[in-house]
Amino acid sequence: MKNIVLIVFISFSFISFGQKDNFKEDSTAIKSFYNASLLKGKSYQWLDHLSNQIGARLSGSLNAQKAVEWTEQELKEVGLDKVWLQSVMVPKWTRGVTEFAYIETEPGQTTNVPICALGGSVPTPIGGVKAEIIEVQGFEDLRKLGTSQIEGKIVFYNRPMQADLINTFEAYGGCVDQRYSGAAEAAKFGAIGIIVRSMNLRLDDFPHTGTMSYGNLTDLEKIPAAAISTNGADLLHSMLTLNPKIKFLMNMNCRSWKDVESFNVIGEITGSEFPDEYMIVGGHLDSWDLGDGSHDDGAGVVQSMEVLRLFKETGYKPKRSIRVVLFMNEENGLRGGKKYAEVAKNKRENHVFALESDAGGFTPRGFSFDCSDENFAQIQSWKPLFEPYLIHYFSKGGSGADIGPLKKDGIVLAGLRPDSQRYFDYHHAKNDTFDAINKRELELGAATMTSLIYLFDKYGIK
Amino acid sequence: MKNIVLIVFISFSFISFGQKDNFKEDSTAIKSFYNASLLKGKSYQWLDHLSNQIGARLSGSLNAQKAVEWTEQELKEVGLDKVWLQSVMVPKWTRGVTEFAYIETEPGQTTNVPICALGGSVPTPIGGVKAEIIEVQGFEDLRKLGTSQIEGKIVFYNRPMQADLINTFEAYGGCVDQRYSGAAEAAKFGAIGIIVRSMNLRLDDFPHTGTMSYGNLTDLEKIPAAAISTNGADLLHSMLTLNPKIKFLMNMNCRSWKDVESFNVIGEITGSEFPDEYMIVGGHLDSWDLGDGSHDDGAGVVQSMEVLRLFKETGYKPKRSIRVVLFMNEENGLRGGKKYAEVAKNKRENHVFALESDAGGFTPRGFSFDCSDENFAQIQSWKPLFEPYLIHYFSKGGSGADIGPLKKDGIVLAGLRPDSQRYFDYHHAKNDTFDAINKRELELGAATMTSLIYLFDKYGIK
Repeated sequence: MKNIVLIVFISFSFISFGQKDNFKEDSTAIKSFYNASLLKGKSYQWLDHLSNQIGARLSGSLNAQKAVEWTEQELKEVGLDKVWLQSVMVPKWTRGVTEFAYIETEPGQTTNVPICALGGSVPTPIGGVKAEIIEVQGFEDLRKLGTSQIEGKIVFYNRPMQADLINTFEAYGGCVDQRYSGAAEAAKFGAIGIIVRSMNLRLDDFPHTGTMSYGNLTDLEKIPAAAISTNGADLLHSMLTLNPKIKFLMNMNCRSWKDVESFNVIGEITGSEFPDEYMIVGGHLDSWDLGDGSHDDGAGVVQSMEVLRLFKETGYKPKRSIRVVLFMNEENGLRGGKKYAEVAKNKRENHVFALESDAGGFTPRGFSFDCSDENFAQIQSWKPLFEPYLIHYFSKGGSGADIGPLKKDGIVLAGLRPDSQRYFDYHHAKNDTFDAINKRELELGAATMTSLIYLFDKYGIK
Repeated sequence: MKNIVLIVFISFSFISFGQKDNFKEDSTAIKSFYNASLLKGKSYQWLDHLSNQIGARLSGSLNAQKAVEWTEQELKEVGLDKVWLQSVMVPKWTRGVTEFAYIETEPGQTTNVPICALGGSVPTPIGGVKAEIIEVQGFEDLRKLGTSQIEGKIVFYNRPMQADLINTFEAYGGCVDQRYSGAAEAAKFGAIGIIVRSMNLRLDDFPHTGTMSYGNLTDLEKIPAAAISTNGADLLHSMLTLNPKIKFLMNMNCRSWKDVESFNVIGEITGSEFPDEYMIVGGHLDSWDLGDGSHDDGAGVVQSMEVLRLFKETGYKPKRSIRVVLFMNEENGLRGGKKYAEVAKNKRENHVFALESDAGGFTPRGFSFDCSDENFAQIQSWKPLFEPYLIHYFSKGGSGADIGPLKKDGIVLAGLRPDSQRYFDYHHAKNDTFDAINKRELELGAATMTSLIYLFDKYGIK
């Protein structure tokens, strides 16, 4: 092994002076982004306003409109070359009065459990639905049980997130089918409602909402769907073990409305050398309605805004046009992401790079990339520049939902990857609030994003 | 560069089958530690008890004694080969009734600010000390101002932690001299008390205590010393800017007592091949008295206990003797760490490795090492084994306070390095409580520690 070390050492010592100068210049630029973010950043102050003065901002809500107007105004104050709104029609769904549910062991003997309607669910009849419960671990169980054992009951999906997976997004991916398609699948067997164990690795009392689909079901076939907190799910499981005949009542008066107009918010620093090459950075402006959407995705919104502000603050003038895009409707429709890509295609805008931050405002660990091997080799050559900031994770595979529709040959798509351990403690639940945000972690994320964009802007896409 | 890659590739392909087998065996073992910690760990449950049923446990307190007895009992239940207590005399200091302080702009016009006595401080006279304030950034300022401007006043040390440093421990190191030696230095110029800006990167209302020294001062020369919250410090600074003649009152009735007996708690799995080679893992059992010491250092205590339990749980039988050492009195004396090293030396016990966890229960990022270059090369060869767990930080420089006294040629000293961004939000303050702990982060730390010890046990110290 010593020979290898020697050869590698000799080879590195042949690196041209030009490369060394670049390394020094890039190190200095990157340090200036981190310093500006940590010492005079605006991301935390922006998030305070978005979370605490505006709050939850589900697509089609008054708050979503407020968020559009406020971020447009703030971007104008940053002094970008252009700021505009991009119209997009979005679905509108409202929760109505707070849901409730209880377990009935015998008439009059009830125990309340925390539930929340899944986004897009139909309501229950007035007064709720009450029925026996059938507990399953997934769709395979439905097929085994069949209509005879499911018809007329409420299906309880109770497959937990896998705690031994280090990346919690992987654990999420392993059970979110229950939430997304659980109602559509259970309805086929005659279920009259479903409840889903919350996608949460902790045991607590917060139900976690999220989007769902009824697939091909007709309106008459649709059944109400709710999430139950993890503690509630464990209680229900225990009570079912003691007595499979207990009943469950769930009451929800959520409702879907016709689509309404909303907007993506876009700001641009026009490139000094290649104005027709576009690099975008974004997060989604909408959030679920239970918390204030600080981690999902207020953090990504303010970090993306901060990227452009840090360029202005440090005096870096990008060669390429850098846009911040605050997407509307990621949570329940992805209409904003699709609209942005559609307009870009119609206008034949040459998008070369897109970065999304939509995994929480926690300590940044690195990025994942959806790009060619050649592009990825280029990215890996930059790793030493990130080492002083403890940014070590550079991996292929996945970027972000909103930038996905931009995918084509030659573009580099990237996703910020913060530490994932706490993310699902808050995701889509009412505790996703500003107090769960650490100022430094948020700021480190913004600086890390800025640094990557700086490098791609300076060196271009290979 | 392509040639290098080729040469490295060819060289690696010559790695013997033995090495490949080892990699597979080690990967499997390490996976088993992570699985056991995340799926059926005891660290979180232990910490719940230590934090919520016992609580703050300053050396010499009843709670410190309870913690000794309870951890001894728990270690016995793990089924170790030996569990014992090691007697050590420790200092005893009590805070007394809660401190208070106010800023007086003119007689009768006062504004309360949050303070807490520094550990080891003398009390104020009954009713407190009231005097003008002189604000400084450090000891150099004292020398510039001189006795004429300091005598009879309270010195206010207000140099903040440097927010642009990525590693927050570095920022802490950069200003903790104000807390540790501030009273001793200011007293030389006739100050009658000091207050120190809390070692905290956030702006909030928690004063952070910590140990201090009066150096060579006689009892009569000692002056009371307190920390003020960061918000309080900023307020005081602003008010001083408006009017340098404002007065400050601080009231404290803390007290030092004569030394009392306490204990290090030690458990051992005796080595199957080299029982006379000792490897230790530990954290400190004492904590400051304001919170419940969950991060500092309840986390390190339960993680260290968990290392030995994970070996039992997974059936791994160490070749060398592995000890968990729960040190008493790290915070204000280090008596436990010194005692352990003294006894080890007297008994001529051959300690080859020591690992400390005393940097919070946050997501583990890696380790720092105090060892020879040869040992460090061995450690670096293990990096690929840690990659699946996102453990990437392996660095020379520093290990931990309690294991420091064991330092000698040939021993490897290591410190767990968790993510440091949030640590000083809680450090030595009343919000260092169990709710600030994330179960998975704590468990990942325990598994990471276990994995390192497994590797050192299996391959020995080069």
